Amino acid sequence: MKPVGPIPAGFEARDGDLIIGGKTATALVEQHGSPVFVYSKELLTKRLADLRQAMPDGLDIHYAMKANPFGPLLEHMVSLVDGIDIASGGELSMALAAGADHISFAGPGKRDKELIAAIEAGVTINIESPTECDRALDIAAKAGKTPILAIRVNPDFDLKGSGMKMGGGAKQFGMDIDLVAPVVAKILEADGNWRGFHIFAGSQALKADAIIETQAQTLALAARLAGEIGVAPAHVNLGGGIGIPYFPGDESVDIVAVGAALSKELESLPDILKDTQFAVELGRYLVGEAGVYLTQIVDRKISCGETFLITDGGLHHQLAASGNFGTVVKRNYPAAIANKFGIEPEEVVSIVGCLCTPLDRLSDNANMPTANVGDIVAMFCAGAYGATASPANFLGQGPATEIFLD
Amino acid sequence: MKPVGPIPAGFEARDGDLIIGGKTATALVEQHGSPVFVYSKELLTKRLADLRQAMPDGLDIHYAMKANPFGPLLEHMVSLVDGIDIASGGELSMALAAGADHISFAGPGKRDKELIAAIEAGVTINIESPTECDRALDIAAKAGKTPILAIRVNPDFDLKGSGMKMGGGAKQFGMDIDLVAPVVAKILEADGNWRGFHIFAGSQALKADAIIETQAQTLALAARLAGEIGVAPAHVNLGGGIGIPYFPGDESVDIVAVGAALSKELESLPDILKDTQFAVELGRYLVGEAGVYLTQIVDRKISCGETFLITDGGLHHQLAASGNFGTVVKRNYPAAIANKFGIEPEEVVSIVGCLCTPLDRLSDNANMPTANVGDIVAMFCAGAYGATASPANFLGQGPATEIFLD
Repeated sequence: MKPVGPIPAGFEARDGDLIIGGKTATALVEQHGSPVFVYSKELLTKRLADLRQAMPDGLDIHYAMKANPFGPLLEHMVSLVDGIDIASGGELSMALAAGADHISFAGPGKRDKELIAAIEAGVTINIESPTECDRALDIAAKAGKTPILAIRVNPDFDLKGSGMKMGGGAKQFGMDIDLVAPVVAKILEADGNWRGFHIFAGSQALKADAIIETQAQTLALAARLAGEIGVAPAHVNLGGGIGIPYFPGDESVDIVAVGAALSKELESLPDILKDTQFAVELGRYLVGEAGVYLTQIVDRKISCGETFLITDGGLHHQLAASGNFGTVVKRNYPAAIANKFGIEPEEVVSIVGCLCTPLDRLSDNANMPTANVGDIVAMFCAGAYGATASPANFLGQGPATEIFLD
Repeated sequence: MKPVGPIPAGFEARDGDLIIGGKTATALVEQHGSPVFVYSKELLTKRLADLRQAMPDGLDIHYAMKANPFGPLLEHMVSLVDGIDIASGGELSMALAAGADHISFAGPGKRDKELIAAIEAGVTINIESPTECDRALDIAAKAGKTPILAIRVNPDFDLKGSGMKMGGGAKQFGMDIDLVAPVVAKILEADGNWRGFHIFAGSQALKADAIIETQAQTLALAARLAGEIGVAPAHVNLGGGIGIPYFPGDESVDIVAVGAALSKELESLPDILKDTQFAVELGRYLVGEAGVYLTQIVDRKISCGETFLITDGGLHHQLAASGNFGTVVKRNYPAAIANKFGIEPEEVVSIVGCLCTPLDRLSDNANMPTANVGDIVAMFCAGAYGATASPANFLGQGPATEIFLD
């Protein structure tokens, strides 16, 4: 038996059926078909409220929409946060369609046409290299626009314990520290609107201490760079890094501790950062636990003594859960039999997808209540890096339905 | 420095520019934009001709279209092979649209609606479990049709050295050997058209000896099962298993040796298999090396002494090449600077995609001729498990253009 990850807070059963946004999993599958992603507005709203409560007053919270760009969800996030962070021209179009007006754009390979669209839309561009800065200034000059440019810095430290390290060594993201001051000087000379810094050291960390340490390092780096430049930055994006529990033994980040430490840091800032507006940029933490992927069992079989539940979903919607995206060893995401939710486990089963490849495993040797054809598997933590981070067209399957539960 | 994989045969340069289907990479990107998948009809045709030459006379060759379902390519494959193997109702629609008339359907989680469509279309259904057999017989009876059913067997051996093991232990694919005879008896009782067996032990093997041994085991298993059933199978699908070289040190399969050994086996079959038609089912081997992914460099930067070439493509089209699909350790796929093809390497660079994630690495510390913004990176072995096996919509990027070079 291999344990499954911890089921996020906020999910309960009604007569043994998982409730999401006030509806049972059974009713959701009856209404919308299977497989289906369901996102709970209520859980999104609560997550933001709890985070605001924990974080320092006046700190901006940005949503990194790469985590989940589904239109209705994105519109709700626009109403809750202080800015939307995009990573492509495609995301820019979606953000504008969702009504976002505070947008910033990071990404190591911005095409000219993406820079043009961002400058036209008045988006803050996080400049990733000296050559990208030159391209942005040229494009803005030709368009007769003032570009709004921040510098993405490749920090000389990383976020300890983070799932994705984005600093602390050679990286394709941002520019090395020694390049920053000359590039800012060039922006100021060209009468560009220099917004400040974007410093992102890593993501998906669960230890408050590591996040607190990284935020302190980030503030110190921003102060040092501002001092070198001799101009106060209007804005500093401190990055994100707050992860969510996926695997057995993982625990939620103590955001109250993170918020308290950050408040203390912001109260004792050096003079050059006294008027700076700070932001954190979060994706997965804001939306990941608010989504569930429901998929119906189409076969149950025993092979060499192992019981398989075969679903009509799979890695084409749940690539990360299948252990094929950013993880080396397959561990079980939180999963349950949705229409037997909260019922004691009775047997050990492997839950697989319908794809004709051995990679398509959702849950290995998990302890579950007995389930049969027609029952519904719930994969939790499906609100981030699910639908769009999976190869939907693999084996001719196509995308799953997505539902925003108002 | 980390070596890159071996560039497949059939690619040459004209004035330092990679030629695919008679056109230069530069011309292809100018005409179709970047990034773009290009598939060479000429290389597909040659691959099939060479394989026919090596394989026993009368052996059927099937194409497993999951490897690449791109319409124009699929139409060409239909014209070259003896059958199309599908893995979903979506693939059934595509196969029919491409003019396929010999179709077989394998997959562990077939929905009722997929069984209905397959029975209506006269497709051979590879039955994966006793319960799936019951469902197929019920559906056919209700429709007044005779279902064409083969048994997918979970063999008690695997293909040694294969990248994907699909036999030799508990598996979601097919049924264990002891279940086969009773299920065939049920099909015959219900007046179903029992076609034979589908026995697939693994894929992506490079050693001829291992493939030869597995084919012998597969034939022995088919004979044993036919003996138990007491009826000769009309058709046996021997599976595939012939891989292609991706990584440094990999060598092409000696298909002449495989074909010679299989000829010998087929000449000394037991009586019960004397009139059986045999097929091999190949996907990656038929199409993988005929495709190239071209992506243009949008930035060149140095971070902490490491040079990065940042392209406008990435893992959203090349998930497997980025090391995030079915591999544990990232090794470099075959790659080149397409418009400096065949030119001596001059520097060590990491080639990355445009996505704002550290997972998006195409080639780590590879030795390449000097390349700058506007130059074109070629990723080889992109004809199989590329476009549809990657999360095209990740970070709002969308799919790449695909071109079939006639």
